[in-house]
Amino acid sequence: MMRIAVCAPSTPITPADAERALALAAAEFPDLEIVVHEQCYAVEGHFAGSDAVRREALLECANDPSFDAVWFARGGYGACRIAEDVIAQLSPCARDKTWLGYSDAGYLLGGLYRERIGRPVHAPMLADIRRENGEAALRRTLGWLAGAREGLEPNLAREAHPVVAFNLMTLAMLAGTRLMPGLAGHVVMVEEVSEYLYAVDRLFFHLTAHLGGIAGLRLGRVSDVPENDRSFGHDAEAIARHWCARHSIAFLGHADIGHDAANRLVPFG
Amino acid sequence: MMRIAVCAPSTPITPADAERALALAAAEFPDLEIVVHEQCYAVEGHFAGSDAVRREALLECANDPSFDAVWFARGGYGACRIAEDVIAQLSPCARDKTWLGYSDAGYLLGGLYRERIGRPVHAPMLADIRRENGEAALRRTLGWLAGAREGLEPNLAREAHPVVAFNLMTLAMLAGTRLMPGLAGHVVMVEEVSEYLYAVDRLFFHLTAHLGGIAGLRLGRVSDVPENDRSFGHDAEAIARHWCARHSIAFLGHADIGHDAANRLVPFG
Repeated sequence: MMRIAVCAPSTPITPADAERALALAAAEFPDLEIVVHEQCYAVEGHFAGSDAVRREALLECANDPSFDAVWFARGGYGACRIAEDVIAQLSPCARDKTWLGYSDAGYLLGGLYRERIGRPVHAPMLADIRRENGEAALRRTLGWLAGAREGLEPNLAREAHPVVAFNLMTLAMLAGTRLMPGLAGHVVMVEEVSEYLYAVDRLFFHLTAHLGGIAGLRLGRVSDVPENDRSFGHDAEAIARHWCARHSIAFLGHADIGHDAANRLVPFG
Repeated sequence: MMRIAVCAPSTPITPADAERALALAAAEFPDLEIVVHEQCYAVEGHFAGSDAVRREALLECANDPSFDAVWFARGGYGACRIAEDVIAQLSPCARDKTWLGYSDAGYLLGGLYRERIGRPVHAPMLADIRRENGEAALRRTLGWLAGAREGLEPNLAREAHPVVAFNLMTLAMLAGTRLMPGLAGHVVMVEEVSEYLYAVDRLFFHLTAHLGGIAGLRLGRVSDVPENDRSFGHDAEAIARHWCARHSIAFLGHADIGHDAANRLVPFG
């Protein structure tokens, strides 16, 4: 029996979200026991509880040796406000854990990977149950935890380099902070959602200046781009190619990740 | 007679904008001659012409020894795509010039300040003529060029440290790039517009990690914050104070700058 703790370092889920996810897990993954921390339902302003509440809940999950994995419930925004303090207070048992999430959870995945604490995995989160076909997203994460491998991002199978996957904004904001992992020699996959293309271009301007020495970049889906008052004039792939070329970074093509129900898993490393 | 070249490194203005600005200058500032480059009206996708067109126009203005100043016409987005190439191709006469603008023009001001080329100034731009009371904004920039000092940001008068002013997003994106000036010992003023407070918080998380050694931070106006589906729970000043405290940066109070007609001038240094 694998035991999985769920907490919400960013924004809250509802009990109804948790019920649906737990029902799916109980029906299809009998070898997984999922424990949803009550903090997941806390609400304070934008966040799933204050910084202190979110930090303590994550530490309870992370420092409990009976859990094998910590599954982040939902993104949004907020993990960067607690990530450093959490990482500084982890017990030795945290090193045995798998950490799963994406989007805003990337601040934690990045910081944990920097410190080589356990196994960070870009993976669908509990709140993805809200999406159309969200059950498929959850099955991918839970299936991987139960031993299946078909949820993995397909390029991993033939990739010799270590790989990480991040939301573009999240990785751009990590750059230069005390949470930024060393990515030399890595293939870096990035995806984005709900950003204007000029903002995507701006993020690539910034991020590529921080990715010296990476093995290459793969572009996930750039989805739900808002309509601007005028066309940007370049699509997301052209933007990625432009900035990779400026910094002599190999553009390796696409990655099957994104803010959608088809988002695949990328275990870091 | 001071000669001022106007070009648009980001997005275009219209001939009507230029006519209004030139009429104001002719009526009130007879000692200023303003020459608006035709490139200011070029349109290609998001930009005032292609990267090459914007770069060449800026170089024509910057490398013409008959101009005393280069006034950026408008922000938006795009200066970061040409700034490095422009700075690499400047003639010696560029070192005698004053560079004026704000917002997206900050990529150029930052890169020029890094290289100590001429005098970068955070200042209202020609396109501010479109704002309500926009004439007052233009009078502040043109008045300063003509020798007046009442348009200066008021805290400068009693500030012993060198000062810079930037849009928060622009400075956050500059951090770690080849355009980022060294800001140790400086008072850094930042302002923001049209960003959610969670995005302001995210930018402060990122930027303050890059501002080690500054003399302190002053917060300009954070305006036109879009309404979110829920309140963030902290206002802009609380956000700035939080991240300054985390990085032992002195929070010095407010600055009279912003994306509005009241925006004051900050000569860098």
